[in-house]
Amino acid sequence: MPEYFPEVSEPIQYAGPKSNKALAFKHYNPKKKILGKTMAEHLKFSVCYWHTFMSTGSDPFGPGTMLRTYNEPEDPMEQAKATMDAAFEFFSKLGVGYWCFHDHDIAPEGETLAESNRNIDAMVKLAKKHQRATGVKLLWGTSNLFSNRRFMAGAATNPSPEVYAYAASKVKKAIEVTKELGGAGYVFWGGREGYDTLLNTDMERELDHLGRFLGQAVEYKEKIGFKGQFYIEPKPKEPTKHQYDFDAAACHAFLQKYDLVDHFKLNIESNHATLAAHTFIHELEYAAANDMLGSVDANRGDLLIGWDTDQFPTDIRECTLAMYIILRAGGFKTGGLNFDAKVRRQSIDTVDLFHAHIGAMDAFARGLENAAKLLSSKKLEKFIQKRYAGWDKGLGAKIESGAMDFEALESYTLEHGEPKVQSGRQEMLENILNEYL
Amino acid sequence: MPEYFPEVSEPIQYAGPKSNKALAFKHYNPKKKILGKTMAEHLKFSVCYWHTFMSTGSDPFGPGTMLRTYNEPEDPMEQAKATMDAAFEFFSKLGVGYWCFHDHDIAPEGETLAESNRNIDAMVKLAKKHQRATGVKLLWGTSNLFSNRRFMAGAATNPSPEVYAYAASKVKKAIEVTKELGGAGYVFWGGREGYDTLLNTDMERELDHLGRFLGQAVEYKEKIGFKGQFYIEPKPKEPTKHQYDFDAAACHAFLQKYDLVDHFKLNIESNHATLAAHTFIHELEYAAANDMLGSVDANRGDLLIGWDTDQFPTDIRECTLAMYIILRAGGFKTGGLNFDAKVRRQSIDTVDLFHAHIGAMDAFARGLENAAKLLSSKKLEKFIQKRYAGWDKGLGAKIESGAMDFEALESYTLEHGEPKVQSGRQEMLENILNEYL
Amino acid sequence: MPEYFPEVSEPIQYAGPKSNKALAFKHYNPKKKILGKTMAEHLKFSVCYWHTFMSTGSDPFGPGTMLRTYNEPEDPMEQAKATMDAAFEFFSKLGVGYWCFHDHDIAPEGETLAESNRNIDAMVKLAKKHQRATGVKLLWGTSNLFSNRRFMAGAATNPSPEVYAYAASKVKKAIEVTKELGGAGYVFWGGREGYDTLLNTDMERELDHLGRFLGQAVEYKEKIGFKGQFYIEPKPKEPTKHQYDFDAAACHAFLQKYDLVDHFKLNIESNHATLAAHTFIHELEYAAANDMLGSVDANRGDLLIGWDTDQFPTDIRECTLAMYIILRAGGFKTGGLNFDAKVRRQSIDTVDLFHAHIGAMDAFARGLENAAKLLSSKKLEKFIQKRYAGWDKGLGAKIESGAMDFEALESYTLEHGEPKVQSGRQEMLENILNEYL
Amino acid sequence: MPEYFPEVSEPIQYAGPKSNKALAFKHYNPKKKILGKTMAEHLKFSVCYWHTFMSTGSDPFGPGTMLRTYNEPEDPMEQAKATMDAAFEFFSKLGVGYWCFHDHDIAPEGETLAESNRNIDAMVKLAKKHQRATGVKLLWGTSNLFSNRRFMAGAATNPSPEVYAYAASKVKKAIEVTKELGGAGYVFWGGREGYDTLLNTDMERELDHLGRFLGQAVEYKEKIGFKGQFYIEPKPKEPTKHQYDFDAAACHAFLQKYDLVDHFKLNIESNHATLAAHTFIHELEYAAANDMLGSVDANRGDLLIGWDTDQFPTDIRECTLAMYIILRAGGFKTGGLNFDAKVRRQSIDTVDLFHAHIGAMDAFARGLENAAKLLSSKKLEKFIQKRYAGWDKGLGAKIESGAMDFEALESYTLEHGEPKVQSGRQEMLENILNEYL
Repeated sequence: MPEYFPEVSEPIQYAGPKSNKALAFKHYNPKKKILGKTMAEHLKFSVCYWHTFMSTGSDPFGPGTMLRTYNEPEDPMEQAKATMDAAFEFFSKLGVGYWCFHDHDIAPEGETLAESNRNIDAMVKLAKKHQRATGVKLLWGTSNLFSNRRFMAGAATNPSPEVYAYAASKVKKAIEVTKELGGAGYVFWGGREGYDTLLNTDMERELDHLGRFLGQAVEYKEKIGFKGQFYIEPKPKEPTKHQYDFDAAACHAFLQKYDLVDHFKLNIESNHATLAAHTFIHELEYAAANDMLGSVDANRGDLLIGWDTDQFPTDIRECTLAMYIILRAGGFKTGGLNFDAKVRRQSIDTVDLFHAHIGAMDAFARGLENAAKLLSSKKLEKFIQKRYAGWDKGLGAKIESGAMDFEALESYTLEHGEPKVQSGRQEMLENILNEYL
Repeated sequence: MPEYFPEVSEPIQYAGPKSNKALAFKHYNPKKKILGKTMAEHLKFSVCYWHTFMSTGSDPFGPGTMLRTYNEPEDPMEQAKATMDAAFEFFSKLGVGYWCFHDHDIAPEGETLAESNRNIDAMVKLAKKHQRATGVKLLWGTSNLFSNRRFMAGAATNPSPEVYAYAASKVKKAIEVTKELGGAGYVFWGGREGYDTLLNTDMERELDHLGRFLGQAVEYKEKIGFKGQFYIEPKPKEPTKHQYDFDAAACHAFLQKYDLVDHFKLNIESNHATLAAHTFIHELEYAAANDMLGSVDANRGDLLIGWDTDQFPTDIRECTLAMYIILRAGGFKTGGLNFDAKVRRQSIDTVDLFHAHIGAMDAFARGLENAAKLLSSKKLEKFIQKRYAGWDKGLGAKIESGAMDFEALESYTLEHGEPKVQSGRQEMLENILNEYL
Repeated sequence: MPEYFPEVSEPIQYAGPKSNKALAFKHYNPKKKILGKTMAEHLKFSVCYWHTFMSTGSDPFGPGTMLRTYNEPEDPMEQAKATMDAAFEFFSKLGVGYWCFHDHDIAPEGETLAESNRNIDAMVKLAKKHQRATGVKLLWGTSNLFSNRRFMAGAATNPSPEVYAYAASKVKKAIEVTKELGGAGYVFWGGREGYDTLLNTDMERELDHLGRFLGQAVEYKEKIGFKGQFYIEPKPKEPTKHQYDFDAAACHAFLQKYDLVDHFKLNIESNHATLAAHTFIHELEYAAANDMLGSVDANRGDLLIGWDTDQFPTDIRECTLAMYIILRAGGFKTGGLNFDAKVRRQSIDTVDLFHAHIGAMDAFARGLENAAKLLSSKKLEKFIQKRYAGWDKGLGAKIESGAMDFEALESYTLEHGEPKVQSGRQEMLENILNEYL
Repeated sequence: MPEYFPEVSEPIQYAGPKSNKALAFKHYNPKKKILGKTMAEHLKFSVCYWHTFMSTGSDPFGPGTMLRTYNEPEDPMEQAKATMDAAFEFFSKLGVGYWCFHDHDIAPEGETLAESNRNIDAMVKLAKKHQRATGVKLLWGTSNLFSNRRFMAGAATNPSPEVYAYAASKVKKAIEVTKELGGAGYVFWGGREGYDTLLNTDMERELDHLGRFLGQAVEYKEKIGFKGQFYIEPKPKEPTKHQYDFDAAACHAFLQKYDLVDHFKLNIESNHATLAAHTFIHELEYAAANDMLGSVDANRGDLLIGWDTDQFPTDIRECTLAMYIILRAGGFKTGGLNFDAKVRRQSIDTVDLFHAHIGAMDAFARGLENAAKLLSSKKLEKFIQKRYAGWDKGLGAKIESGAMDFEALESYTLEHGEPKVQSGRQEMLENILNEYL
């Protein structure tokens, strides 16, 4: 088997913060224990197949810039196999425990559904072999329901029921192979489930179809005994003008309406959060507060740029706050940190893939360490506890218990007069956070 | 009684599109019948008390610029009375059928809740007299739970239960006087129900409190027999960094979670929609698709400006599409078009208030006429019907009826092969719309 | 020669606003005279080669959706010829007077610069033939300096002088063929002249190189006697994070610094303006106020979307204001209205290209008619004249003539006291504008 | 003299990074030497008078929340004096070397210009006394030309020449007192020098007036021998829809056009940069690259919020990159780091002012230390040097020297063929930066 990443001759090692080696972890020490678990167990890093191995730097203004040896075979299946060999070489050299894929990342689409499925089967067989050999596991699988021309107007929300049927067929297969590969979850990202213009759209009917589709997926999952977690991944727009899974709250509304809320959790992506005019941290917090926090697509956007830049996460403050919420919510169960991120178009060498992932893993390792210390200090939690202490007894407890109606509350106010107000201490709390960065 | 708007000596008249008179309606002809109802019945224009009579052009960089004679009395209650006299003079001269207010728009806040309530009572008495005299009705009332220092950290979501109690007392009173004035609805806008920083916030607990608060409001409403409609008004941010009622979908999620969905409809504001990264039209459509379309705060924002500019609506295309959705959904029941809009800081003369409202009313009158013609033509509806026709019989009907599971769908796809795709015809539809503008 | 647009059997005709024909102009009547010139002379519509004939609906989430018969030949030069035949068929059937192109829109890039240039020469020969046969003229030409991998880090601002040299060679050829085809102008759009990260960028040196490059282009233009106008097209970002030609003002600063201001005008694009946080109208006005208004890329963006959507213009208000500024500035000299716009990904039929262009041409025709009426009414101009009348005599005239220094101005103020202020009448002016829409 | 900040009994001390004291510097050690200068000399921290002492937490949705004892005196001049006593107590306790003010921050505006000037004179006398007593210096002064109703349509760009005259009178006085107080600079921020609507605006004439105004200010400065630096502070919008000093490039274009480029440098504000769709770092770099880097308004905005939030800087990465550019450009000459920032509306206690400033000073101290290390390491500089090395000799040097015209460049390309491209290594460089944070 050829070596696809010869510039990295052996697995990336932890070398500590003072190391001058670019191709080494300075903070991510997989076996280091933090709050009773290893870093690797906490962080559950995953490499995404699509950006890392399938994309070559094209953008709307130019084709790919990255020349990969695994793209050299002309036959699509040969290319797919070389790519998968490369992928597992990369996972091993990088030292991550998980990967994620879309059906047609790993296998080329055929002339017919049957051929496509045969291609998938062949590649899944190879993937199983590699998984066994390397110990790398599947964090989640998914089906690409947005690239092919047939999905241009959506998959489950397509005006044509034949496209709905085609999408169902693809998802059926993708759930099956995710099960086959021992995947811990399955993601629904509704890339074109939305609209480009309301002038040609029946929103209510489309939403009903989407509700039905996901309900059928749940039925099929249960029928075949797939135990992995289903996730919806919110994104507000791009490629469509407006996607139905706009943000965590929109997914929450949708899942409640179609009685699916017990069957799905959310896969929160940083850059999707900010495209929806939220912070990443807000979306995590909203998910946690509503028991919907499942998995994370770890990347970063550029807040001055209005499209999904899918950059590797490097912001220590953001990584710290994200890990703080995740730890506080009990850590990942089925999910993990999947790098849904791509190197920049000018980062044309394979070594850039290593720099990118190493930097991101170090950033989240720092985030984990900072968050664990901050959580252990209880500085923020105590502040919050004290701030809301009025609800734990007296008037607040009575209100929470349902003992005070509007008339009782008015009597209370008439008697007690103007409430005391307290500083929110935002700046002090920001300083405390900075101490941990 | 002094005259506050002497520059308009008699009610504004419809003068037709060819008129050269600035202070006349060119399109709004209140008695003109369209689709079986008069323009006035369709549009239900309302003037908001806060911007039109209480604001004087201040912005974060300077104090007010508008010198109003009704602001001259030094005694707060005298000023309030003069202002109300002016308001009803304005309503009458403009020829609108409705008004809206917050409790402390019409009455100054006192030293105590009891005094505040007495002030409100006195002003409500005057308002009733004016309503009788002019025939102007109350579209909705509300309570200001965001200006006073005590509400700086929220009202129902305040860390202090005493503030919750104060807010409840205010809402209780405001519902009572809305009932007293025959108001057709009551609006909850959660101006500071959100957070400035998550570092000091317990989001889950705050949401629970907000759910309880609105539930208690429903109980009280039912207890006193107020038959008006309750509305939530979504807004994503401003004044807080993040408000819980971010957009229609967030309200929908919240109302479902707290089992309030049958008791509330939405009051959709154009400028709030765009601050939430949606179009106004999207929010109306989402509300309509989920049976939550209640009332409208008609204004416009500036999409290149990131705050709520609350400008008067003038965009004929937007007004047409809004009225198209409203007509298609059966028109307003309890709600109407409230101009939650303010004249610019440099528009310092009272005549500018007339120009602004006349322009907005003409814009929506054109919108109504255009929408009625477009709806009658059925051009968009037929296109949509045809686009989704596959769902009305055959495969589509079977899917909708629940007769096809994933396995059946896969069999169908294997047998039938690649679906046909059709042009979305967006540009043609945009041209059709333009024909009606 | 095969027919590529059989769905349109003869040139699109003006059918008037009451026509029900979708494939007819309802407002654009090319021979109608307005303010002494025909509509065609005023508007100078141009079709862009790249979007209309080279793009097939791909986006970052999926490949092309549009199957064109002129793309069927496998040989690149045969395909290029079929495409050009189709293009001129389209120009003729649509009835536009102008076209625009990049070098490698019309001719495939070869293995070497020499081969590329031979390809261009062959295609230019064909283009000349078509121009003669149809009377369609070249509004402007340009060179694509952003798609090829070699330009990934910029062309004139590339860290490698060899890339600078390559770019110079391409521009040299493109200016030559623009001259050959009788082009009225030549556009520089610095698609990757900017940076992705400042961490690897020497901004000062890159700007110096860009200044030199454009200076050399001016020298070469003069050497070969090309009389067309040079334009810079501002755009703030995309594909890069930050482009040096951010907006009209940034170009103005740059051209002054490198002493190029007499040799360039601006090609203002609507969607680029809004991506830079300006209105299209602002950019036109800034250009006009600084004698830099050259040509227009007429499209529209979606202000809720952060990338260049390049949609066809349909907003009558925007078209009216744009034509108002253009007419007031004396109309186009060398420039025109080039539709740098593309049909949506779902608009897959060739007839959609007609719908799109017809709608845009009608929108600008309405804009022209509205603007001409508004200008003739002098309503806005008189208002402005009166608002600034204080500068035409007395104190204002003295200040403008330089007769008042700070000390004299202070004496004046001490003597005359508080200035009178006047309403800006924004709402009234907006109503006046609406009367003309 | 009463003590206004009793919660801080003595000057804030440096206590080191391990201290648990909230009211201590953990990183800012004023006397610590870095690259040959003390931290205090490098950073030149300044407190702004307006936010810190004049604002009380009001926002567009509610009045002030902060009750300050220095605001208790009812007489405006007594209040102004108490406020100034408080301000210098604060400067001393905080340990900053500089302050900044607008004329009517320190002195109330009178009924007439003469009275206003007398008020200013009285307060300047007190300020001089305090400056002498504390050693605190004036970084820059300015005049408020945007709050008073008379300036609602601009100051130098007002349609009324009388307002221009009034503004000139105010600036004249403000320059005089800045000189009197030994100010190192004077700032022009054109808060309303722009437009709310182009419908009533003569942009060209307004720009000419602004050019003249600044030219007259230069003349007056020279006449009275004020040696301080003049700065323009770019801001794109807010309060107006569009301000002429939009960003650094717009100021650069303007200053060149009116031949003022030698007399002004820029005062770059972080939050203004991001409102203009640039990064803070971009604006600093642009200023440095064009020799216009003067002073800094150090704050941060919220990139998800569209208005100027003026928050205290806390982002270590941003502070590091800012100090990196400033150090590389030779450090501050006349300018410094002025905290144009305000505590949040809920931060109602005076101690919050200390938390806020301490956090910001620590953040910039960390930024300075990081930047100094990064600069000393030369890691970024060497990378850039190597990346552009092709320009230092051979082809590149010939191009820079002017020895290669387009024809020579074409010959070179024909001969040498395809240029080699190199990875931009963005991810590796981001990792290097992170090592220093």
